[in-house]
Amino acid sequence: MSIYKELKRECYEANMQLDALKLVVYTFGNVSAVDRDKGIFAIKPSGVPYEILKPEDIVILDYDANIVEGKLRPSSDTKTHAYLYQNWDNIGGISHTHAIYSVAWAQAQMDIPILGTTHADHLTEDIPCAQPMRDDLIEGNYEYNTGIQILDCFKEKNLSYEEVEMVLIGNHGPFTWGKNADKAVYNSKVLETIAEMAYRTKQINPDAPRLKDSLIKKHYERKHGKNAYYGQ
Amino acid sequence: MSIYKELKRECYEANMQLDALKLVVYTFGNVSAVDRDKGIFAIKPSGVPYEILKPEDIVILDYDANIVEGKLRPSSDTKTHAYLYQNWDNIGGISHTHAIYSVAWAQAQMDIPILGTTHADHLTEDIPCAQPMRDDLIEGNYEYNTGIQILDCFKEKNLSYEEVEMVLIGNHGPFTWGKNADKAVYNSKVLETIAEMAYRTKQINPDAPRLKDSLIKKHYERKHGKNAYYGQ
Amino acid sequence: MSIYKELKRECYEANMQLDALKLVVYTFGNVSAVDRDKGIFAIKPSGVPYEILKPEDIVILDYDANIVEGKLRPSSDTKTHAYLYQNWDNIGGISHTHAIYSVAWAQAQMDIPILGTTHADHLTEDIPCAQPMRDDLIEGNYEYNTGIQILDCFKEKNLSYEEVEMVLIGNHGPFTWGKNADKAVYNSKVLETIAEMAYRTKQINPDAPRLKDSLIKKHYERKHGKNAYYGQ
Amino acid sequence: MSIYKELKRECYEANMQLDALKLVVYTFGNVSAVDRDKGIFAIKPSGVPYEILKPEDIVILDYDANIVEGKLRPSSDTKTHAYLYQNWDNIGGISHTHAIYSVAWAQAQMDIPILGTTHADHLTEDIPCAQPMRDDLIEGNYEYNTGIQILDCFKEKNLSYEEVEMVLIGNHGPFTWGKNADKAVYNSKVLETIAEMAYRTKQINPDAPRLKDSLIKKHYERKHGKNAYYGQ
Repeated sequence: MSIYKELKRECYEANMQLDALKLVVYTFGNVSAVDRDKGIFAIKPSGVPYEILKPEDIVILDYDANIVEGKLRPSSDTKTHAYLYQNWDNIGGISHTHAIYSVAWAQAQMDIPILGTTHADHLTEDIPCAQPMRDDLIEGNYEYNTGIQILDCFKEKNLSYEEVEMVLIGNHGPFTWGKNADKAVYNSKVLETIAEMAYRTKQINPDAPRLKDSLIKKHYERKHGKNAYYGQ
Repeated sequence: MSIYKELKRECYEANMQLDALKLVVYTFGNVSAVDRDKGIFAIKPSGVPYEILKPEDIVILDYDANIVEGKLRPSSDTKTHAYLYQNWDNIGGISHTHAIYSVAWAQAQMDIPILGTTHADHLTEDIPCAQPMRDDLIEGNYEYNTGIQILDCFKEKNLSYEEVEMVLIGNHGPFTWGKNADKAVYNSKVLETIAEMAYRTKQINPDAPRLKDSLIKKHYERKHGKNAYYGQ
Repeated sequence: MSIYKELKRECYEANMQLDALKLVVYTFGNVSAVDRDKGIFAIKPSGVPYEILKPEDIVILDYDANIVEGKLRPSSDTKTHAYLYQNWDNIGGISHTHAIYSVAWAQAQMDIPILGTTHADHLTEDIPCAQPMRDDLIEGNYEYNTGIQILDCFKEKNLSYEEVEMVLIGNHGPFTWGKNADKAVYNSKVLETIAEMAYRTKQINPDAPRLKDSLIKKHYERKHGKNAYYGQ
Repeated sequence: MSIYKELKRECYEANMQLDALKLVVYTFGNVSAVDRDKGIFAIKPSGVPYEILKPEDIVILDYDANIVEGKLRPSSDTKTHAYLYQNWDNIGGISHTHAIYSVAWAQAQMDIPILGTTHADHLTEDIPCAQPMRDDLIEGNYEYNTGIQILDCFKEKNLSYEEVEMVLIGNHGPFTWGKNADKAVYNSKVLETIAEMAYRTKQINPDAPRLKDSLIKKHYERKHGKNAYYGQ
């Protein structure tokens, strides 16, 4: 029996959530979960439909994207996951979808502006959209470079990956992360919800203003600050 | 056995309706129910997922938001509920959601204009959007001040809470109420439906006019007037 | 046992279809079915939720809207149904909903232009939107006058109720009809689908042209002409 | 027992998928499957609801649209399918729907621009919209001419049917195909998803640019090129 059985199950269940939450059609998405002690992560195999996916199909890899255990080919986005685990010590899971509203903002090549408290309940910044990759990087190690693209975006915009747990890759779609795979999927759903709210707000009123700083701070603090009073 | 058992069940079932009616994702909403004789109200605990919520988890508080019974922390919006119960004698339940179309109008900071008879079947006024709170109030007792914000909005616009059972908090989302918790949730669903209809109408025809007064009156009267002939 | 048992069941099942097809929320809709031999029609009682509606709750009335059998108050729109049955000999059922896209066009006070073959498969004309009622008629026998409003609209636009089985009441919503109650509900769903397609088409291309006459004729004829080859 | 039993089942199951994937309302769609060895294809009978459709109802025809086996009238679009099988040797299934977003672009008479990687994962070209048919062809053998219209569109735009497995018929709706009926339905769902993403992108940013060539090539190659690394 695999020593990774528990991690595979966590990864499997998070992937099944993508489908249950209607964040994917067919196999347009993947979730991974990391084990920091063992230095490996688990990810969905490429192109396997959710109806037939089993926990034992999950592939185990190290942070250089070498396969450690598993008979199937891992997700085509595996190197992006690997790069993020290698560089961001405090994340436990990563989720990638092609959910409609998140993709629409990514294809529009625009940050999602913070327009209300639903957004501020989760982060205090506009959701960043990384600009499309340079041609020389695309022709190179594409998925690895997608990881670099994300880190460059966060550096350029001076964002913390521990506070902003989501990004849009221009022309592609969203990546989200969190303390574990379950939280990463949660952030995919939150992002899709915020993306739809911002979309509809701008349709009603193209001049709808950004949420003011005092409200951003208040809502974020009551959920995440040191005197937070949300949740149990 | 709790003497609040029945009230807890009413509150629990109304909260579960939010989920069944697709008015919330995750825990982005809360419903309360009041017992006027006992001078207390019941509300959802903060951040507890609907899948595991049980009637006995419901928290009981007085109108000053002191906990009377319950082991869990109450909803982070509890003080807003408390303030409304304290000031509006004739309401029996309150519902708060982050439903998409209601939030979109709130983020657009616009009243929802009365454009048709679906709206007039329920109220004769545009659905008011309270302007975002003043900074000094945000930094103070925020949720309590949200209650003040709602009452100020109704005073300023000269509205009756018994006729207009819903409000949008600018940049946040909707609060609705009614004679009991069930009716409050009903009003959340009605508001979301009206909000979507108004959204789509304005997309088709940005100049779509307000419903004329004679039709507003007719539709409201046939459902709520003294010679009403709607329902049993 | 009621001699109207079979008619009540037809009416009941058509009303339940409104709910199953997601054309209504709560009780915002009603369907009726006529028995031409007996000179009576069956309609949903007012304000009774679908979850508890039973076939024996259905109300039987004559064409002057006098109750013939039934303990419950009939739909508030009953006189509109009665007027249409009285004036249009060849219809067997009528359906009324507040479905979102149909209502949006009605609130926009615009005919739905014929933009494609899905529309032409069912009718060759734009879907008419009757202008809001004159104030003196609203203050009078409102629901009866809604019937007059529909007939006036068809006369003014020179339409045949046997070819155009649907209408939008300005600021209110759609009425549809057909050879029986089942077909009337079918037309409510078709109308809602066409209404959404036209909405989205105009969002993509505000100048999208009307379908050309040759295609309108071809699609209608292959389904409804004397050499029709659609269906069994 | 029919020698076409297996083909009928493949065709039946693909048609049922249209319904399960919410690509059709009522009977607004049809799927066919071909047997190249026998020189025949199987298609849905016209106007039969999915709830009562059975595998043995499927109709078998040759490439000239003559019925080989079956008691029911075949889909009214049968000659379009026949023409495509006759002219395109390497397709095994065809699917036709009236899915909302695909129809909206067809009614807008516009190609769907390639705006992101979800599109590029499946094809490298804008999704072509064939211009509405000439009047003399409409009055002639309409469905047969729809086949000609598709081939003319591909010739004019210099497209390969093996690379671009989908087309919009102006003012009508989408046809998709693939190596078998299942893949044809998959392409109908992919097209509808891409159509919605492009719709929403353009609503957010009407000037959203076409995906750059380097990204188009990269995403297509990693899934379909000779060194593809997507799937198992």
